[in-house]
Amino acid sequence: MPSDGSSVTAKVLALLGAFTADAPELTLSELARRAGVSLPTAHRRAAELVTWGALERTAEGRYRIGLRLWEIAALAPRAHGLREAALPFLEDLYVVTRQNVQLAVREGLELVFVERIAGRGAVPVLTRVGGRFTLHATGVGLVLLAHAPAQVQEAVLANPLPRYTDRTLTDPSSLRPALAAIRAQGYAISDRMVTPDALSVAAPVLGRAGTVQAAVSLVVTAADDAPTRALINVVRTAARGISRALGYTHPNPVRSFTG
Amino acid sequence: MPSDGSSVTAKVLALLGAFTADAPELTLSELARRAGVSLPTAHRRAAELVTWGALERTAEGRYRIGLRLWEIAALAPRAHGLREAALPFLEDLYVVTRQNVQLAVREGLELVFVERIAGRGAVPVLTRVGGRFTLHATGVGLVLLAHAPAQVQEAVLANPLPRYTDRTLTDPSSLRPALAAIRAQGYAISDRMVTPDALSVAAPVLGRAGTVQAAVSLVVTAADDAPTRALINVVRTAARGISRALGYTHPNPVRSFTG
Repeated sequence: MPSDGSSVTAKVLALLGAFTADAPELTLSELARRAGVSLPTAHRRAAELVTWGALERTAEGRYRIGLRLWEIAALAPRAHGLREAALPFLEDLYVVTRQNVQLAVREGLELVFVERIAGRGAVPVLTRVGGRFTLHATGVGLVLLAHAPAQVQEAVLANPLPRYTDRTLTDPSSLRPALAAIRAQGYAISDRMVTPDALSVAAPVLGRAGTVQAAVSLVVTAADDAPTRALINVVRTAARGISRALGYTHPNPVRSFTG
Repeated sequence: MPSDGSSVTAKVLALLGAFTADAPELTLSELARRAGVSLPTAHRRAAELVTWGALERTAEGRYRIGLRLWEIAALAPRAHGLREAALPFLEDLYVVTRQNVQLAVREGLELVFVERIAGRGAVPVLTRVGGRFTLHATGVGLVLLAHAPAQVQEAVLANPLPRYTDRTLTDPSSLRPALAAIRAQGYAISDRMVTPDALSVAAPVLGRAGTVQAAVSLVVTAADDAPTRALINVVRTAARGISRALGYTHPNPVRSFTG
């Protein structure tokens, strides 16, 4: 039976979107259920996706995301291109500190972690490369939110904001001045706002046009002392290095969407 | 006009496959031409892909691979899952040597680089994460070829093999004993077989079932001295660590498909 092209595209994309970090391998019936398509449709489309390499079959016959899709996706400039430019600087940060180093971009009202280098002895963090998180709590999230367009900020502040610890800023009246301070000082500090033992220092990464493209952070074990100027400086230096690698050459201060 | 579902799937995949490392951003007409579809079809399908996030538009209106596709692809176990397990060991290799560290898997008759950590002072290499290469010349390629199923080896040897330097093994009569030696000794050395100044030492990474899942290598500047035992040992140690992280627990020697 011929079907409408739009719905076929939607079904193909729904099949790909059925996979999650919790369920990276799926049986055919799980795949059909999660994608919201019939079993015969899932079977037919999955076979095409396997032929092309977007999906692979495991030895047990389950489906998983295929290497060919990963190869294509590795061309995504906003994730992989950024990551390639940033990696030497992230490695430097890691080698110098042996702490968690993170690189994130904003996607809509959330952030996506594009890279993470985790020291084995470093404080545990909740993040995963390719994983999403809210914008109002982590160091990278606060930087990305502080430099987001006004309508993004308003949309984030209009929704109820999850509280992770008793230090999480969940109230617009405390978040707004915090975001203004982050723009003014050029970095963000999230002190036990996500977990009770972690502190992150984050700084913005600028692209060629001088707008904020990403944020880089260092996550350390929280202490009652304020983070040292040296810690802030090493993160800002790495962020400036990545910005330069992305083609940013302006001598001006950071230009945010809201500035 | 209703279209057949199979051809729609093929067109959607052709649109994604139109992007390459040389052309990560495409105009609509470039996209249509590379995907082999009409301009109206490209326009209609690309719009659906943009809505879902598989593609994004740049400020200039060009298309590029989107962050949402990258997020989904980050779930590919054979690339990303492997990389996550391997990264701490690759970082150790890098910190100890400050040379190029590479991780690759076999895909058909080629290899795909899944990770690369490049020291800034290290010898230049030709590789790119997500990029492909032949199996018969690099250290990782020789390891993956040595442990590939017999029909894969025969298919590779049946084709003309590119010569990169005068040391590249391009003759089945010299490659076959080299592959046997790699299986027997547990590592491969590619001494100026790809570029005139680089030497790589590579070792196999085993999965839970004891089969070779990947290869890890260290690329150093070639010298007239043979690579030291210490260099070989550090690569093999990293490969064993990654194997253990993947669940390999057998005390037996490496089991290759051809063994």
